[in-house]
Amino acid sequence: MTATPPTTTRRPIADRHLFGPGPCNPYPEATLALAAPLLGHLDPDFLEIMDETCDLLRHVWGTDNRRTLPLSATGSAGMEAAFVNTVSPGDVVVVAVNGLFGERMVDVAGRHGAEVVRVDHEWGTPVDAERVAAAHPSPKIIAAVHAETSTGVRSDIAALGALKGDALLLVDAVTSIGGIELRADDWGIDIGYAGTQKCLGVAPGLAPFTISDRAFGRRVEKPSSWYLDLGLLGGYVGEASGTGKRTYHHTAPTAMVVSLHAGLQRIADEGLEKVWDRHAEAGRLLQDGLEEMGLTLFAQEGARLPELTTVRVPDGVDSAAVRAYLLERHDLEIGAGVGEFASTVWRIGLMGHNARPDRVALVLAALEDALAHAA
Amino acid sequence: MTATPPTTTRRPIADRHLFGPGPCNPYPEATLALAAPLLGHLDPDFLEIMDETCDLLRHVWGTDNRRTLPLSATGSAGMEAAFVNTVSPGDVVVVAVNGLFGERMVDVAGRHGAEVVRVDHEWGTPVDAERVAAAHPSPKIIAAVHAETSTGVRSDIAALGALKGDALLLVDAVTSIGGIELRADDWGIDIGYAGTQKCLGVAPGLAPFTISDRAFGRRVEKPSSWYLDLGLLGGYVGEASGTGKRTYHHTAPTAMVVSLHAGLQRIADEGLEKVWDRHAEAGRLLQDGLEEMGLTLFAQEGARLPELTTVRVPDGVDSAAVRAYLLERHDLEIGAGVGEFASTVWRIGLMGHNARPDRVALVLAALEDALAHAA
Repeated sequence: MTATPPTTTRRPIADRHLFGPGPCNPYPEATLALAAPLLGHLDPDFLEIMDETCDLLRHVWGTDNRRTLPLSATGSAGMEAAFVNTVSPGDVVVVAVNGLFGERMVDVAGRHGAEVVRVDHEWGTPVDAERVAAAHPSPKIIAAVHAETSTGVRSDIAALGALKGDALLLVDAVTSIGGIELRADDWGIDIGYAGTQKCLGVAPGLAPFTISDRAFGRRVEKPSSWYLDLGLLGGYVGEASGTGKRTYHHTAPTAMVVSLHAGLQRIADEGLEKVWDRHAEAGRLLQDGLEEMGLTLFAQEGARLPELTTVRVPDGVDSAAVRAYLLERHDLEIGAGVGEFASTVWRIGLMGHNARPDRVALVLAALEDALAHAA
Repeated sequence: MTATPPTTTRRPIADRHLFGPGPCNPYPEATLALAAPLLGHLDPDFLEIMDETCDLLRHVWGTDNRRTLPLSATGSAGMEAAFVNTVSPGDVVVVAVNGLFGERMVDVAGRHGAEVVRVDHEWGTPVDAERVAAAHPSPKIIAAVHAETSTGVRSDIAALGALKGDALLLVDAVTSIGGIELRADDWGIDIGYAGTQKCLGVAPGLAPFTISDRAFGRRVEKPSSWYLDLGLLGGYVGEASGTGKRTYHHTAPTAMVVSLHAGLQRIADEGLEKVWDRHAEAGRLLQDGLEEMGLTLFAQEGARLPELTTVRVPDGVDSAAVRAYLLERHDLEIGAGVGEFASTVWRIGLMGHNARPDRVALVLAALEDALAHAA
């Protein structure tokens, strides 16, 4: 056994511009909240903050679902919670695949015994609601990604909701929540999960989750996951907020919840629709600027996310060298592409606090500098 | 949908003494690290910090296991990861139950189809290794809790390791790690999980996890959980630290990992065995002080944890009223009992940064004050 402590490095604190696909630089309020004196998970103050966090989450989800809460793990665990609580072996799940996260849904649903019907789309294009709805006559679940982080594409969830019939609509809103229009109830979303580290402007670590009464009524009674069992988690957050009745399930990650509360409060104070507008403007400025530089956008026109822009690496340019230059020279992170586009696409995120004109100006100037050096 | 933001409360920041069963007040280094500029999960600086965190975790676990990492969820998810990766339907799992967390192991193992053989012990007493080892001739797994958070009892894991035979030894070290002697390799622990919010002195949110090559070789190839699939998580931390080869799995909760790194570094700097001694002294001072006040300790003598003391509520004293007084008057949290002992036992934790003489003096004085007011 390692009786001697390992040797570690004392390093200066890095101060990065996080313009990749997430995490982003958090809202200052969210960072400060992390450093506040820690609260116990049963502290009356914490329970109030948890209740308010659920209320604020309902606001950003656009839902009245009483079962709306921050799961105590990252966004990917939100995907797992969505399927483990709703899929029994043999259930038909139609999955719209137009990027990595749709692909992952296929894997996760399959692990719980789903009969998966996948509907593939070209990467960079949005989900075709009619094709997805026609893929099976009576699925239990139709699943899709609202904002594909791997390609920078937005899909029309309302269109899926209009065609879902009796199926439950399960939506990945990791990269959309808090950045673009999202109206879970109006669009017919039954089960939704998200992350904190994208447009909500909070560090990664929690998965905002919502489920309708209709979906909850069709859930798996005793899912294989104890940690993500929504039947038990209802008691953890007092089911309907404000009742004050709680049962101990697990120790809430209190610092992260308090930080999420602060980020959500910041968004509510600014005004949710104004925050969407701010993201829209930043994305437009960035995408216009990239095209003015002669670069080619990757995501299909009309389906481009403002908060996450995909752009083709110019011929003859070394994608990794440019990213390394940006990091070393400008302390600025952008993302590589995913899968077959790993070295031919960049992903540039302007999310949450970073959806601002100064950040657009910086990333365009830095990229121009990097391309001059890489040429 | 909730178009209007909910009304929330602007409240003063509470500054609590967290002397319950966890979380505790973190090491100052861990708190400050939370507020540092956020790093991306693929940032070279973060990957170094992750590697060092795994090295430091090996140190506090007392293991050379290359598969030692912080899972991206709370300690309870560590329990889930332990079972979901090792239990196939029909596998025999012997569980030593001497408190709530042994009880929970029975539930979690059962969800994955284990044939559970439970060996019950009176709450407040330690696990009887011989009885546990004799419960089944050839179990796949023997599972036990090192430090029962519900009762304040320490069990002899080395004794279980000596008798485990071919079985895998699965241990809950949530409340022991970083507080009392723990030597995973020397004691024959094959699978171990813990939490950050107890004696490691970090906020809740991660589950330090370790698994031996022997146990990994007998794992479930494609477990029902994608999020906690150790076969995938190996790539996430570069399998053997320092190789630099990584595959994207999920977005690491970077702020929490950086904070854990700072807490572990603090422990290594002080010296792990000195930290154990500090906990031992604080616990002894507290337990002596409580007995001097005429109170009766709950956990069996000889098996008492120094970091978590259980004490009987005196006859005629209202447990909840005392706890409320402590919180309101002294901003001081202690824990209620669990299960049938909910109102007859208190749990007082002196963990991590709180395992210090000044904290002992404070909690004894405050409790004396509370008892005088509650009488």
